[in-house]
Amino acid sequence: MPHTHDHADQRQPQTQAQPADGRTLFDRLRAACADDWRAYTEHPFVRDLGRGTLPFPAFQTFLVQDYLFLIQFARAHALAAYKADTLADIAAAQEGLALVVHETDLHIALTQRWGVDRAMLEATPELLGTVAYTRFVLDTGMAGDALALHVALAPCMIGYAEIGRALAPALDRPGEHPYREWIETYAAEDYQTGARDEIALIDRLAERSFTEARMSELTRVFRTATRMEAEFWQQAL
Amino acid sequence: MPHTHDHADQRQPQTQAQPADGRTLFDRLRAACADDWRAYTEHPFVRDLGRGTLPFPAFQTFLVQDYLFLIQFARAHALAAYKADTLADIAAAQEGLALVVHETDLHIALTQRWGVDRAMLEATPELLGTVAYTRFVLDTGMAGDALALHVALAPCMIGYAEIGRALAPALDRPGEHPYREWIETYAAEDYQTGARDEIALIDRLAERSFTEARMSELTRVFRTATRMEAEFWQQAL
Amino acid sequence: MPHTHDHADQRQPQTQAQPADGRTLFDRLRAACADDWRAYTEHPFVRDLGRGTLPFPAFQTFLVQDYLFLIQFARAHALAAYKADTLADIAAAQEGLALVVHETDLHIALTQRWGVDRAMLEATPELLGTVAYTRFVLDTGMAGDALALHVALAPCMIGYAEIGRALAPALDRPGEHPYREWIETYAAEDYQTGARDEIALIDRLAERSFTEARMSELTRVFRTATRMEAEFWQQAL
Amino acid sequence: MPHTHDHADQRQPQTQAQPADGRTLFDRLRAACADDWRAYTEHPFVRDLGRGTLPFPAFQTFLVQDYLFLIQFARAHALAAYKADTLADIAAAQEGLALVVHETDLHIALTQRWGVDRAMLEATPELLGTVAYTRFVLDTGMAGDALALHVALAPCMIGYAEIGRALAPALDRPGEHPYREWIETYAAEDYQTGARDEIALIDRLAERSFTEARMSELTRVFRTATRMEAEFWQQAL
Repeated sequence: MPHTHDHADQRQPQTQAQPADGRTLFDRLRAACADDWRAYTEHPFVRDLGRGTLPFPAFQTFLVQDYLFLIQFARAHALAAYKADTLADIAAAQEGLALVVHETDLHIALTQRWGVDRAMLEATPELLGTVAYTRFVLDTGMAGDALALHVALAPCMIGYAEIGRALAPALDRPGEHPYREWIETYAAEDYQTGARDEIALIDRLAERSFTEARMSELTRVFRTATRMEAEFWQQAL
Repeated sequence: MPHTHDHADQRQPQTQAQPADGRTLFDRLRAACADDWRAYTEHPFVRDLGRGTLPFPAFQTFLVQDYLFLIQFARAHALAAYKADTLADIAAAQEGLALVVHETDLHIALTQRWGVDRAMLEATPELLGTVAYTRFVLDTGMAGDALALHVALAPCMIGYAEIGRALAPALDRPGEHPYREWIETYAAEDYQTGARDEIALIDRLAERSFTEARMSELTRVFRTATRMEAEFWQQAL
Repeated sequence: MPHTHDHADQRQPQTQAQPADGRTLFDRLRAACADDWRAYTEHPFVRDLGRGTLPFPAFQTFLVQDYLFLIQFARAHALAAYKADTLADIAAAQEGLALVVHETDLHIALTQRWGVDRAMLEATPELLGTVAYTRFVLDTGMAGDALALHVALAPCMIGYAEIGRALAPALDRPGEHPYREWIETYAAEDYQTGARDEIALIDRLAERSFTEARMSELTRVFRTATRMEAEFWQQAL
Repeated sequence: MPHTHDHADQRQPQTQAQPADGRTLFDRLRAACADDWRAYTEHPFVRDLGRGTLPFPAFQTFLVQDYLFLIQFARAHALAAYKADTLADIAAAQEGLALVVHETDLHIALTQRWGVDRAMLEATPELLGTVAYTRFVLDTGMAGDALALHVALAPCMIGYAEIGRALAPALDRPGEHPYREWIETYAAEDYQTGARDEIALIDRLAERSFTEARMSELTRVFRTATRMEAEFWQQAL
């Protein structure tokens, strides 16, 4: 999914004190959905990708769906800009949107190297998991507030960083790794920084509109998004 | 504006404890915008309507714009239903929408008695204040959460009840009052109950997604909506 | 999915001349997606339901997901009301919404008879196909116009009528049919009338905002919705 | 209002044949609202600005409201990106959004030179006409399709170009003109090109979703937006 992260949010002061117990809202949501989170981040697709044993056609299917995903992911960033009410927030969301648009161009270059040309990308219909995850994020974000939108995006933006960190040691083994470039993208420091920014952004949004009474609603959003992410892997196998 | 109130919200348990200082969020918002609130609820249009000295053409202009307002007000209730995430909340918003649609039919009957026929209603363009208030509510509600939507609606739904109470004593004076029916509508116990329900609904929504960090955002919404309401009176003069 | 249809649209004059070739826009869309349409309306779930051989647990799974579907389907009707710009269209959409809310209550009664109680309904997470179809409809409707929204709803509202007609003869066989009530619901004349109304509504909306240049966009919407409907059956097996 | 135009749309092929009578949809809408269009583009504010006799405080009031307008105008571009369904359209809207964000920064520099500092900009409440025009555009665009959104934006994006051309000869007179920079901005070739692109974009969108049956709806949108623009001048006087 996203090859980049929205660093634009760094514009905003990140003064939030850590919660008393040192846990971010993201930490709490992940803990509340521990089984679903593990089923997503340790999915057989991810494991085999790390081992380099993932069949190439599965990876190609994933790449094409990932391109279709990015189009809707760009729309979700546009939605975040629409939902902003200060110029600074609009500018931050606009930079995020610009990065996704730019990355989609890079993605096309990448998929070409992996044997998927542009015509193939555009002629392929979205699979079930692609429709489910993207439209869930967009509808959650439109119906709810910016916090709900970012909680729906979190499994993607933050989960891929966790997966990148987990798979990175596989690159230390001698010999070629067929998916080295993909793993490096998400293990890279700039992607990791982006994920930490997103965790901080969720905490900043929570400072404004989170109360414990919303925990069950946001857990449901996070869990559904996490489950849809696992389906996104599954559909490629 | 609204001749009815959405009693559907009574479905929901109203268990919320009063805030420690006994003030509702509505109380706080009204206090934060005291001057604008007074300029709206004690506007010359309202004062002259109470005294019975409001020129009839001004009242007719108001009635026609009020009809055009109700169409957008119905859309705002539809938006509340779209934004709901439980069947109970959807059902409550649907009943509110049904009441507005029903009241708009009554409104047509009422305006006919006051010399405004349906063709005239539908051919009249919306005046500036009508566009400003209604589209501000709809955009605030779409971009924000249900709490922001109801705060934007509050000056209308709760303000008219306050105006009804304030003008009611004028009906005790001997002789005919030209605007008796209008004043009675908003002074009536069912309208007053509806306004109290709306105040309670705002507090229930606040229990979920209000923190002090949102006070300035919600005050800005409330103040703009209140100012637009005053313009709604002004444009009829 | 929907046990009822929105007869409210009958309010509106249905004066549209048939297209020159006698085909409705729905006819054209179904023909353009013939394979996907068949895979949906003649899905093994449907076939076995008609034969009475569908395992009961599969039917129960379907019923629970259908309840969760109806909540989002109600939101889609609320969206149609928000998107309306005349009082007549708002009123029609409001009646449609009221019917869905009412039917959801009936649905709870029905599922109880089939051994699924309310607590079970509400505790069950949405499956992938439920998320995919409902959020696709809601996002398509929000991003696009009323025509796009109704094209996304068509496979559900019109497809179930076609399935009801196709399965009805199975009820003529001697002996009990385990799914008689379900089949009768969709074969019933009022449901069939509702489906014809929906076909006519799509043609009325098309009179305003359809040109041949939109055929590929609307075909894509219709095809995706149809494929998601097939997944809705599949997930229950 | 906008100091820039979205040239991004040039990405898209502009192959549309002129309508048979050589008139664009914009031409038709302007002709249908000729009186309102004249009242806007030849408003006393515009006339006095051209003559250089506009009192400076009126211009300052306008500039501050124009800044507040640009924030909502940026949100309208974000909405256009959300409503796009191809990567090319999203990219075009993103570039438009980036330009508005950039121009708002320039606007702050400009207003500082005219004696309005940033704190003053941000502390000033939106006036009635600012709320009315911006929220009307946003609500029209959310409820309708991309064509409706661009028709609502047209009086701003295209009208300012027409005003720029009309006022440009005033700069040929000897001596200093107090509002030279403002007039030059809108008379400049790049702004004029932008306006022509917007006219062409409306025609391209119309190729997809315009039929004569929508003419009254779109005329109503265009007329209301034009009237709100005139109010935007009026409120500064």
